[in-house]
Amino acid sequence: MKILVLNPNTSKLVTKKIADAVNKVARKDVELVVEQIEHGPEALESYHDETLAYPYILEKVEKANAEGFNAIVLAAFCDPGIEALRERSAIPIYGAEETTLSIALLLGNKFSILTEKKHKESVKRQHVRKLGLEQRFAGVRALNMGVVEIAEKGEQVLERGIELGKKMIIEDGAEVIVMGCASMAGYQDELAEKLGVPILDPVTITYKVAEGLADIQTVHSKVGLYATPEPKKWV
Amino acid sequence: MKILVLNPNTSKLVTKKIADAVNKVARKDVELVVEQIEHGPEALESYHDETLAYPYILEKVEKANAEGFNAIVLAAFCDPGIEALRERSAIPIYGAEETTLSIALLLGNKFSILTEKKHKESVKRQHVRKLGLEQRFAGVRALNMGVVEIAEKGEQVLERGIELGKKMIIEDGAEVIVMGCASMAGYQDELAEKLGVPILDPVTITYKVAEGLADIQTVHSKVGLYATPEPKKWV
Amino acid sequence: MKILVLNPNTSKLVTKKIADAVNKVARKDVELVVEQIEHGPEALESYHDETLAYPYILEKVEKANAEGFNAIVLAAFCDPGIEALRERSAIPIYGAEETTLSIALLLGNKFSILTEKKHKESVKRQHVRKLGLEQRFAGVRALNMGVVEIAEKGEQVLERGIELGKKMIIEDGAEVIVMGCASMAGYQDELAEKLGVPILDPVTITYKVAEGLADIQTVHSKVGLYATPEPKKWV
Amino acid sequence: MKILVLNPNTSKLVTKKIADAVNKVARKDVELVVEQIEHGPEALESYHDETLAYPYILEKVEKANAEGFNAIVLAAFCDPGIEALRERSAIPIYGAEETTLSIALLLGNKFSILTEKKHKESVKRQHVRKLGLEQRFAGVRALNMGVVEIAEKGEQVLERGIELGKKMIIEDGAEVIVMGCASMAGYQDELAEKLGVPILDPVTITYKVAEGLADIQTVHSKVGLYATPEPKKWV
Amino acid sequence: MKILVLNPNTSKLVTKKIADAVNKVARKDVELVVEQIEHGPEALESYHDETLAYPYILEKVEKANAEGFNAIVLAAFCDPGIEALRERSAIPIYGAEETTLSIALLLGNKFSILTEKKHKESVKRQHVRKLGLEQRFAGVRALNMGVVEIAEKGEQVLERGIELGKKMIIEDGAEVIVMGCASMAGYQDELAEKLGVPILDPVTITYKVAEGLADIQTVHSKVGLYATPEPKKWV
Amino acid sequence: MKILVLNPNTSKLVTKKIADAVNKVARKDVELVVEQIEHGPEALESYHDETLAYPYILEKVEKANAEGFNAIVLAAFCDPGIEALRERSAIPIYGAEETTLSIALLLGNKFSILTEKKHKESVKRQHVRKLGLEQRFAGVRALNMGVVEIAEKGEQVLERGIELGKKMIIEDGAEVIVMGCASMAGYQDELAEKLGVPILDPVTITYKVAEGLADIQTVHSKVGLYATPEPKKWV
Repeated sequence: MKILVLNPNTSKLVTKKIADAVNKVARKDVELVVEQIEHGPEALESYHDETLAYPYILEKVEKANAEGFNAIVLAAFCDPGIEALRERSAIPIYGAEETTLSIALLLGNKFSILTEKKHKESVKRQHVRKLGLEQRFAGVRALNMGVVEIAEKGEQVLERGIELGKKMIIEDGAEVIVMGCASMAGYQDELAEKLGVPILDPVTITYKVAEGLADIQTVHSKVGLYATPEPKKWV
Repeated sequence: MKILVLNPNTSKLVTKKIADAVNKVARKDVELVVEQIEHGPEALESYHDETLAYPYILEKVEKANAEGFNAIVLAAFCDPGIEALRERSAIPIYGAEETTLSIALLLGNKFSILTEKKHKESVKRQHVRKLGLEQRFAGVRALNMGVVEIAEKGEQVLERGIELGKKMIIEDGAEVIVMGCASMAGYQDELAEKLGVPILDPVTITYKVAEGLADIQTVHSKVGLYATPEPKKWV
Repeated sequence: MKILVLNPNTSKLVTKKIADAVNKVARKDVELVVEQIEHGPEALESYHDETLAYPYILEKVEKANAEGFNAIVLAAFCDPGIEALRERSAIPIYGAEETTLSIALLLGNKFSILTEKKHKESVKRQHVRKLGLEQRFAGVRALNMGVVEIAEKGEQVLERGIELGKKMIIEDGAEVIVMGCASMAGYQDELAEKLGVPILDPVTITYKVAEGLADIQTVHSKVGLYATPEPKKWV
Repeated sequence: MKILVLNPNTSKLVTKKIADAVNKVARKDVELVVEQIEHGPEALESYHDETLAYPYILEKVEKANAEGFNAIVLAAFCDPGIEALRERSAIPIYGAEETTLSIALLLGNKFSILTEKKHKESVKRQHVRKLGLEQRFAGVRALNMGVVEIAEKGEQVLERGIELGKKMIIEDGAEVIVMGCASMAGYQDELAEKLGVPILDPVTITYKVAEGLADIQTVHSKVGLYATPEPKKWV
Repeated sequence: MKILVLNPNTSKLVTKKIADAVNKVARKDVELVVEQIEHGPEALESYHDETLAYPYILEKVEKANAEGFNAIVLAAFCDPGIEALRERSAIPIYGAEETTLSIALLLGNKFSILTEKKHKESVKRQHVRKLGLEQRFAGVRALNMGVVEIAEKGEQVLERGIELGKKMIIEDGAEVIVMGCASMAGYQDELAEKLGVPILDPVTITYKVAEGLADIQTVHSKVGLYATPEPKKWV
Repeated sequence: MKILVLNPNTSKLVTKKIADAVNKVARKDVELVVEQIEHGPEALESYHDETLAYPYILEKVEKANAEGFNAIVLAAFCDPGIEALRERSAIPIYGAEETTLSIALLLGNKFSILTEKKHKESVKRQHVRKLGLEQRFAGVRALNMGVVEIAEKGEQVLERGIELGKKMIIEDGAEVIVMGCASMAGYQDELAEKLGVPILDPVTITYKVAEGLADIQTVHSKVGLYATPEPKKWV
């Protein structure tokens, strides 16, 4: 079995973090490839960034299809271009955001998302609504830190994360907390210990789901939302 | 006042239809520009098509910003890349789908969408959910015809449209029907007469809303979903 | 084109405020009439008030129908008797509350409503639920001031409005704020400047939408919620 | 204990039907008054009718308050003016529609409403949405008969009612059917026998709930939706 | 008419409280039996407790069916095993939680639940979602006291209840407060007086509804959720 | 790693089917135990059956906890007693219904459930509502066959399954179909081929998710819905 874990940005640092995390949990019998896109932004922090990265993500997805991969993990907590990619892919693509929220449903009554900057709260609310999961959503709270800051200032992340996590649990009714940014990877154990609730790391969760489902050839439906587009004339 | 009506594909036929429709209803005191994107697919029929068209749509949006336009109408019933465009635009952008559904709320208890092909029903259901309007949604039914066919075979469109429209009204509870594809433009009067309910033509509805709101400098919020992205390093 | 902007109460002060606001933004080519009802309460602050005002609102609506008006704007943020009025009207009626909330959907992920007194919060929550817009609703907060106070004590309105607005944005996730009372008209620019989000003035928003849609003969559906009632025998 | 069952229209025939139904089930220890309004339409079949009847309904409600009644049943399946009446009443008012839907929740997973004419389906959908009960709503189907016809043509009502009821149960998932019009009173037993599900007669259900709750002085809240309005200056 | 009020645990103290409360409000013409289960836990504070108590609750329900009772009130604010019991019962069973929430809908726009311990907040949220009542739900707040403590430390209950109740009303938008635990019985009048909103005591509310509906032979539907199970072979 | 796949009924035939299915897809490095409960009904077809089986299911769950298992799969499409079991379990328990619906969300816009008997449609609707997934639910349709019949009459299942499946896809908008009964296991490939959409077999899906997540020690939250109950005094 071959699985591609794709970092849909061009940050080598993030790709390395993802590779480390996934390698630690991957099965021996899986041919695991962790890659980043060839070109594109160093971080995806907006719809604009995500949309511009699409051709390079698609390139990797098409290559994985051609090379007989069994599943693709889109390793960013924003599921960039996931509908378009599924339209073009015969093999399953698991977005780290969507998959992790699906799993969070199995672990408690409501989940909260920890995000980076304030304006991302709105984006996460929209995503949860698009996914139809508002009835299980306890809310989102932002660290008010940038992606790089989060990766670098561990102490500050933990301090604020614990403060926000307590509010999520006590005020918002969260029972499960989802780390809503790849740059938070690595903080989950310390947060879980301090907060006493499951802290989900999207990339590893998603990888394990993809790995398991690839064994049984699970694949997305092609009759509706993800129907293969017909070729278009271009100008 | 200057308004850009942008056809986000490269079909000259569709651009002409849009220009005809909008010119008929535009105010004399508005400097109206109807354009299509410079490059891109001839039709947007999938998330894939939409995403690939984005750079060319953005190009026009940025030009309109630079040239002092007051509002932009995105003249396709799929609102391609609208979040990304709003992130990058200081002037308001009105998507034909989103705007028409907002106006449909004012005209009856529930609206239905008439779409082209069967698989588009799923896409429309997802859009309505993303917009949070399911409680006002009576459903979607497909003509099972392609975009070109719809533009060319008027008799067939009317025959099927009337048959589907009756089901929307009698079985689904629709009071308002939204024509869910630019290629349906021009059929609204005959459908309305036969079905006895408002048939909304998204491009003209959206244009008139944009024109009116531009007079009072209405603009989208930049603190959340549409916050301006910071520049990214590219590889 | 002729448009009636109807103040559904008998306060001359409020009618003047409305007239000033609308005259400032109305097109030259529109025959604009701003009126108040002939009899009725000086303010509509309850369902009771609204229901008692109905015959006098209807009187104006029927006159506008008879005199060939193209659209009516109901200039109060409670849409008094709007279903009944639409049942009896062949020309479109745009309620300031309903229309403004529809437009707010186009400007950000979630909107909040600023209202007068505490108990009005419940009323607004019910309205939003009736309209099916809860998924886009960030909440409502009250100034705890009466209608007259709001009109007179500008400084206090601004002070409290800024305080509440910050909570709406930071705690509730609002990206757009709707001024939920006609008496707040005129404060929008200062609030917008201080809060950094769009502050919607319902009467002007609704007027501009009505004006634009009247150009294309948009009208409400008469097959369901707004079907024309058959005459009744009275005792 | 004194309870007023108020027919909010001026049809003596309907008042008699209500009186017969309620007298049959009322407790001996209750001082029961069944009345109709003094003036107003003979039937309430639109928001317009309901709104015009309001002053006469209010008159009766205020009289009941003054005379020490313990509860009021509003005996029409449209709850005409119920918010306004509750604003003005210190004693509880139970609307036949709202109360019956609340009780239907206790008897099965989903309920359906049988209504008179086609356009009333939209009205009932709006009511259910306003009440926040859509998740328990299996839908509404219309007899396509007028109120008088329903009262007179029993055979036709039963024939169509059984046909529609079967569709409600088999296609729509209804487990409980609510008779959505006072004129249907008396058909419930035969429908229940033929359809094998509870058929709820709103007036008797609501009367019995009101009677029971009056024993324990249950009353509606006055801090929000039903806050007592302040007196208004009238012109 | 015979009604069984069943305490589904084995606490004699609680059974006595229930008996006192119900006896005070019961009609003279009703043969009222208040009982507790023969065996089982002294309190039901978890799904585990509830499930283990089921055989003993069922025993009482079957006995009541055999002895010609007209209705059963399940006198605990968790409705233990209510679906299973309704499957096996021909006579109606009214759960104190479900019934009280249905009645709360008639008394204000939104209700809140006062519960015992923090983790019960999640349980109540799940119940409300299962019942499909989230649109009318203002939230739940916990006293952070155990069942016995609540019964014994009245002063502390009142102090915290008033503090939490004010937050429910002012911050959460509650207009009606439901006492979410049998052990809170008796505190309602003092809380209502201090908070100025209806405080609902589930057992008495539910008893009065059951009593009233029993007069008209209301019964739950047996075609769907509560269909009678076929006998099973056991190992 | 040790995983227990538990058939929560006493049918040896069903246990064998489950064992066959799971053995076929299980990893070699997993110590897999497939068992049925020691006592209890041969099939769980009602809440009553499920509740009576609980003590025997719990017995197995506690044994698995004591013996160091890493995860438990509850191999029945009704998730019997899952909240109570999670309260009492430190190791994760994955219900076949809940887990499969979570995965279905990743494969298409909406899913449908194929169930056995008509009345089960209501039960499935309630489950989906309890899980908060109605916005992604295309509905449920019943084979109108019993569990044994389904296991035995393959031709009839396929014939009806294809007929119902087409309706799910064309009329209801399903893109993914979930086989809502363990006795349907084995029909998925033929159904998928004929219908052209993913047909999910809950037991294998759930097993693979459990296996994957056990690798990374995912566990349910114990602070809310699944808090460990305190010991109770029993009578």
